[in-house]
Amino acid sequence: MKILVLNGPNLNLLGERETEIYGEDSLVDINFSLEDTYPEVDFTFIQSNSEGDLITWIQNSEGENDGIVLNPAAYTHTSVAIRDAISSVSVPVVEVHLSNLFKREESFRQLSLTAGVSKGVISGFGKFSYFLAVEFFLRESS
Amino acid sequence: MKILVLNGPNLNLLGERETEIYGEDSLVDINFSLEDTYPEVDFTFIQSNSEGDLITWIQNSEGENDGIVLNPAAYTHTSVAIRDAISSVSVPVVEVHLSNLFKREESFRQLSLTAGVSKGVISGFGKFSYFLAVEFFLRESS
Amino acid sequence: MKILVLNGPNLNLLGERETEIYGEDSLVDINFSLEDTYPEVDFTFIQSNSEGDLITWIQNSEGENDGIVLNPAAYTHTSVAIRDAISSVSVPVVEVHLSNLFKREESFRQLSLTAGVSKGVISGFGKFSYFLAVEFFLRESS
Amino acid sequence: MKILVLNGPNLNLLGERETEIYGEDSLVDINFSLEDTYPEVDFTFIQSNSEGDLITWIQNSEGENDGIVLNPAAYTHTSVAIRDAISSVSVPVVEVHLSNLFKREESFRQLSLTAGVSKGVISGFGKFSYFLAVEFFLRESS
Amino acid sequence: MKILVLNGPNLNLLGERETEIYGEDSLVDINFSLEDTYPEVDFTFIQSNSEGDLITWIQNSEGENDGIVLNPAAYTHTSVAIRDAISSVSVPVVEVHLSNLFKREESFRQLSLTAGVSKGVISGFGKFSYFLAVEFFLRESS
Amino acid sequence: MKILVLNGPNLNLLGERETEIYGEDSLVDINFSLEDTYPEVDFTFIQSNSEGDLITWIQNSEGENDGIVLNPAAYTHTSVAIRDAISSVSVPVVEVHLSNLFKREESFRQLSLTAGVSKGVISGFGKFSYFLAVEFFLRESS
Amino acid sequence: MKILVLNGPNLNLLGERETEIYGEDSLVDINFSLEDTYPEVDFTFIQSNSEGDLITWIQNSEGENDGIVLNPAAYTHTSVAIRDAISSVSVPVVEVHLSNLFKREESFRQLSLTAGVSKGVISGFGKFSYFLAVEFFLRESS
Amino acid sequence: MKILVLNGPNLNLLGERETEIYGEDSLVDINFSLEDTYPEVDFTFIQSNSEGDLITWIQNSEGENDGIVLNPAAYTHTSVAIRDAISSVSVPVVEVHLSNLFKREESFRQLSLTAGVSKGVISGFGKFSYFLAVEFFLRESS
Amino acid sequence: MKILVLNGPNLNLLGERETEIYGEDSLVDINFSLEDTYPEVDFTFIQSNSEGDLITWIQNSEGENDGIVLNPAAYTHTSVAIRDAISSVSVPVVEVHLSNLFKREESFRQLSLTAGVSKGVISGFGKFSYFLAVEFFLRESS
Amino acid sequence: MKILVLNGPNLNLLGERETEIYGEDSLVDINFSLEDTYPEVDFTFIQSNSEGDLITWIQNSEGENDGIVLNPAAYTHTSVAIRDAISSVSVPVVEVHLSNLFKREESFRQLSLTAGVSKGVISGFGKFSYFLAVEFFLRESS
Amino acid sequence: MKILVLNGPNLNLLGERETEIYGEDSLVDINFSLEDTYPEVDFTFIQSNSEGDLITWIQNSEGENDGIVLNPAAYTHTSVAIRDAISSVSVPVVEVHLSNLFKREESFRQLSLTAGVSKGVISGFGKFSYFLAVEFFLRESS
Amino acid sequence: MKILVLNGPNLNLLGERETEIYGEDSLVDINFSLEDTYPEVDFTFIQSNSEGDLITWIQNSEGENDGIVLNPAAYTHTSVAIRDAISSVSVPVVEVHLSNLFKREESFRQLSLTAGVSKGVISGFGKFSYFLAVEFFLRESS
Repeated sequence: MKILVLNGPNLNLLGERETEIYGEDSLVDINFSLEDTYPEVDFTFIQSNSEGDLITWIQNSEGENDGIVLNPAAYTHTSVAIRDAISSVSVPVVEVHLSNLFKREESFRQLSLTAGVSKGVISGFGKFSYFLAVEFFLRESS
Repeated sequence: MKILVLNGPNLNLLGERETEIYGEDSLVDINFSLEDTYPEVDFTFIQSNSEGDLITWIQNSEGENDGIVLNPAAYTHTSVAIRDAISSVSVPVVEVHLSNLFKREESFRQLSLTAGVSKGVISGFGKFSYFLAVEFFLRESS
Repeated sequence: MKILVLNGPNLNLLGERETEIYGEDSLVDINFSLEDTYPEVDFTFIQSNSEGDLITWIQNSEGENDGIVLNPAAYTHTSVAIRDAISSVSVPVVEVHLSNLFKREESFRQLSLTAGVSKGVISGFGKFSYFLAVEFFLRESS
Repeated sequence: MKILVLNGPNLNLLGERETEIYGEDSLVDINFSLEDTYPEVDFTFIQSNSEGDLITWIQNSEGENDGIVLNPAAYTHTSVAIRDAISSVSVPVVEVHLSNLFKREESFRQLSLTAGVSKGVISGFGKFSYFLAVEFFLRESS
Repeated sequence: MKILVLNGPNLNLLGERETEIYGEDSLVDINFSLEDTYPEVDFTFIQSNSEGDLITWIQNSEGENDGIVLNPAAYTHTSVAIRDAISSVSVPVVEVHLSNLFKREESFRQLSLTAGVSKGVISGFGKFSYFLAVEFFLRESS
Repeated sequence: MKILVLNGPNLNLLGERETEIYGEDSLVDINFSLEDTYPEVDFTFIQSNSEGDLITWIQNSEGENDGIVLNPAAYTHTSVAIRDAISSVSVPVVEVHLSNLFKREESFRQLSLTAGVSKGVISGFGKFSYFLAVEFFLRESS
Repeated sequence: MKILVLNGPNLNLLGERETEIYGEDSLVDINFSLEDTYPEVDFTFIQSNSEGDLITWIQNSEGENDGIVLNPAAYTHTSVAIRDAISSVSVPVVEVHLSNLFKREESFRQLSLTAGVSKGVISGFGKFSYFLAVEFFLRESS
Repeated sequence: MKILVLNGPNLNLLGERETEIYGEDSLVDINFSLEDTYPEVDFTFIQSNSEGDLITWIQNSEGENDGIVLNPAAYTHTSVAIRDAISSVSVPVVEVHLSNLFKREESFRQLSLTAGVSKGVISGFGKFSYFLAVEFFLRESS
Repeated sequence: MKILVLNGPNLNLLGERETEIYGEDSLVDINFSLEDTYPEVDFTFIQSNSEGDLITWIQNSEGENDGIVLNPAAYTHTSVAIRDAISSVSVPVVEVHLSNLFKREESFRQLSLTAGVSKGVISGFGKFSYFLAVEFFLRESS
Repeated sequence: MKILVLNGPNLNLLGERETEIYGEDSLVDINFSLEDTYPEVDFTFIQSNSEGDLITWIQNSEGENDGIVLNPAAYTHTSVAIRDAISSVSVPVVEVHLSNLFKREESFRQLSLTAGVSKGVISGFGKFSYFLAVEFFLRESS
Repeated sequence: MKILVLNGPNLNLLGERETEIYGEDSLVDINFSLEDTYPEVDFTFIQSNSEGDLITWIQNSEGENDGIVLNPAAYTHTSVAIRDAISSVSVPVVEVHLSNLFKREESFRQLSLTAGVSKGVISGFGKFSYFLAVEFFLRESS
Repeated sequence: MKILVLNGPNLNLLGERETEIYGEDSLVDINFSLEDTYPEVDFTFIQSNSEGDLITWIQNSEGENDGIVLNPAAYTHTSVAIRDAISSVSVPVVEVHLSNLFKREESFRQLSLTAGVSKGVISGFGKFSYFLAVEFFLRESS
């Protein structure tokens, strides 16, 4: 099983600031921990601040990956283009968020443009949000 | 580990109608399957159509359970009282939904009054939504 | 033909107060009058103030009744759970209201959460709203 | 008893197109069927695509008819002028719709400008919507 | 000075019903009274229930009249087409209303699509609304 | 006949700036012109920038004046307190505006808090708005 | 004087959690304190998590109590049915809240469906909200 | 190929006023120019100020025309009835506008009730909007 | 105990007009009655129509009074400045209203800008609203 | 004549998926077909998933192209930056869409941020939308 | 250069309370500091709680001052009258705020009625907001 | 002191077009002028049309710069991702705009997603907006 873990803008700074919201783990920590826990999965880890690059990565996953674990970060709330990219590939996408979107104070954080075309959404479990997404791919394929 | 799996209105009919939205499994199938997969967990399974009863079950979980897997069903969108019940206990609550709320056509299904006070939300994975919630409790406690 | 006449909260007080809106007849008067007019119909009359009980009555009508005449009263405007109960049974539901919802001053009375999943709506004809609903079931089945 | 059955724009095409929404019967079929079923009623049947003509017909019913069965069709949602015409005559008006307005996807179809000044509304019973309106006039007058 | 007094739908019934809102005078009474009070003005009086006819009357006033006193009645709130007709002629239009629009309970009566392209608005003075409009034309031209 | 002509904030600068909107006449010009045209009326002319003072002037008109011509200027759109003052006296109030409120670009200028409790509104006729208001008082009292 | 003190969902947990919002006193403490302070009043104390039961208690107060002190808690914001129950009895209802609704962050807590049909509202005085409600009944009856 | 070019209210005045928005060409100029450019097309040119007449023209095009070029003008923004007429015929409709609706200042001009049931929309190219619509019919049929 | 009773615009007219909403008592009656009932309290009574003066009175209460009973009247709904004044002093403020704000028809009367920074709100008890506010100060200080 | 055909995100996948919405032709097919049909035009074809790159392409067209045929795809609905880019060049831009935006279910697809600063919009004609845009440039320049 | 520094309601209490939002400096401190830093400027410092007085001060600045540094405080969000005063004078106005309006939690603090007619806005720099405004006047005039 | 001056999309065209809104100076002119005026500051000047690049520049400023002067241009209104980037660094950001956002006609230009996490906002002073931002950094650090 080949899974693309795709992270959106500012997630490269994970674990450095605003740790009360996003937790203490860096993105590298999470990636190592995923590989460690699921040795049977062939992971590709990508992070980009660019909406266009994220779209291209989603497009290129077609025929390459069995699933995408996508944390669109801020683009969750603003990107119709990433939504269209998800719709235009047949690879199933699970949307994950470190924090619980419904607990965030800013009202614009409770709208997800991308969730409506994803398989499902996992929100609020810190690094475990990524783990649960992988669990889903493993369970569904078994 | 003691987990209360609490299901809201109409979930007793699961697997009988609207299976294109909610899947073929009955609630009993899901419960058996959970017990089978996680023999180390001591589950209590409750379903009720009554908002007041669901509140009382949440209140009574205090000191009795280590976690609640809650599918509030229709009350997700209308019950401030269940929200207040969640806030008034210290047991962590994971909100689950069989379907992806963000894909549902009716706009009122995209608002969750209960999610903002839950630990997190898992939506769209059919019966696996319950499994992932249990996974979370197991991983976090380990 | 077996018809369930299901009445929601506060309709047990019909004919006692706010008669300028809801009319002089008590619920018992209406029920007797229905039985009198349609002796060929096998009626069951239920009234409940509890949302959960109304849901259970709708669920139990499956295989028991040929039609439901439902006056959800206040729950018309607030209950997604009753809406889901209607969707989850195959018995056709006709929604009735004693007063004309479109004439009521409070704006929240003009929204019906339950009407969108009912067969149709009859609103504003006092006790005759119930009669017209029964007429429909009789005509359609003939 | 003299009843004016007044139909708004595009209802002259009934039974020809969009039959999955509006049914297979033509307007002439419905009219014949009404006359057949209620021989004691003296019906006048009018259809017009013109808002102004519909207003004039409502005005002229004063002193001529005992009731109006009005299907304003598209003007339901846009005509304050027809609303004012209904208010300006003493003949009681029952508003009918073939389809269940609350089930229609377009949000503008769920607003009725005319219903608030009508006696009541019957919506969703196909041709039987007209029958139930006549039933009401007969029952109330008896 | 030639003035067109143009009245919209249902104003032909003035003085017959809803007199608590619109007053006791019929449209003919108002017209006679205007001719009586302003013998120096050459009046044309038109009433129509048809939006299209009202548009044509406004168009035809070009080069024929020095001013239009327009009571669009219900079309005030719904007709972009009459608004465009007013914009497309050079004759100044004064919009008048018998009742005070701001006092009416229905919120849609407080929006005027036509007022924004008229010279000004006079609302709430019963038949005197027409008189004040004529006064304006006389004073401005003097 | 005793009439209070009450002008709100910034109207003391009339004729000095923004003349394309409000016209070339100063407030003094308008007042002289009113006295000139209606020698039979006993006018009191007041202008104030203070909401509280305008309220007090309206209160004091009780038993002192037969009518108030009120241009609340900016307070039209923001003052519930002036609205309450109008409601609390028996003197009839005619609201006037130099410009046509419906033509102003700022959306907040199209809401009038005071108009709903005034006798009527005259808007858009420059200085003639005041004249028409006086005409109304004269005609109605005759 | 007989007064029903009726408390809605989750108020049975008062004094145990979220004490920074709702205070340190338990519901029993408040009840004892009321009986202590007003020995001349015959109190009935009820708490229920069920919307339907609260409705039934309000209905049953007819002819039994001289006043109801009602804290609808979460149902304040969602229950049209309790609103209708209050409207359907002649016993005067005073709505009380421990916290100041206008200070709560969640916007849905600032809407009260029940307040509009109650005699009045007392909000923000902790346990004293109940005391002031009783004071009102005593003063008004004296 | 037979094409109906159907123009809505006030377009008979084209080229006379508001030429900065709608251009210098009269409707006759445009019609001649279309016939000139597309001699292979059999055109019918209709303009009407009446909503009802436009509906009837659309209905009558069934079986008579291969396509309709429709400029609904002001009715674009207000007519559900024309929308329903378009839905009720099988003739394809191309909606055209002389000006770019998205550039117009009035917000109500940016809503099109008719566009959602048309084949497509061409807006902003002056008289060329009509030409491009005809081009489409020619290209698609070739 | 020193209490400032501060009344906003138009309350000087209390008992003279609109007595069906505000009651028969004048402000002087209420003040006398308060002094009579609570001789142990040192009252200061102020009424002003001026927003600025009310702000200054609130500011000056710092160090002078133990509590403010504030009826902001119309300024309740429009004054951010009075809200800021309340926030800027340490004297506790209880907001009172004679009528039940939630029963008033005008929607703008149901918004209180000042309540969110007050200790609490008492609304709907006529003159007793003032009494209950004083009761609160006495009970809390005891 | 030099025309830039500029395509936004995901249009590189045209013809591969969601063909029921966007048609069977690939972007290369459309480009070849355009060159074939209009040999007199010197086309530049660009597609990019990156908002920033699209902006730069629009900026660089200044002095290079006589017109831009722009399909902003998903950025239509979200990009103020592309809107500003169009405003900042003098090259005329025609906005095209393969599908009819007004027919799409998602409400956010009916808002175009870019259309308001374009010359005009062509929406709903599949690949012919591009052809009609080129037609316009040719006709206008001739 | 003569500059009027005009401060709105409650700013006389600066430095005494809510210092976490507005800072430790009193208004007098800021004024001294401004005079100290810009000895070449002839300052007039005014603070008032009265909307009417602030309007009059702005009006009187005409011909007296070269610029106004205006902190309208709470009136920023509610005063159309101050907006109109700014529009009615030719003296340029720079609006300043001590706190960053966009960071304030209350949504009504993010609307500025006065900013749209001011030269520009400086918000969030504490006492330096005043300094930067003066800097602007000095730089622009140099 | 090291300051990053970061400019968003289309600002590279400054001084070439729309000079009535944005002024005559090019970005290079402004940069030279800043260096000239503040020789003690070590400036880095960046302009990019790419949202992703702007995010990366903000991230890289950590530990490199003492302050950022940010003109996000169009991204002000649409970029949650830039907002998150500002939140994720400790470098203070001052948001600047050449034009006064509150004066712009398009409503979407009055929303700033980035301002709420910036230190403050300076809007409307043309090139001086940049100067005032630098002034702030200098004054605060002194």
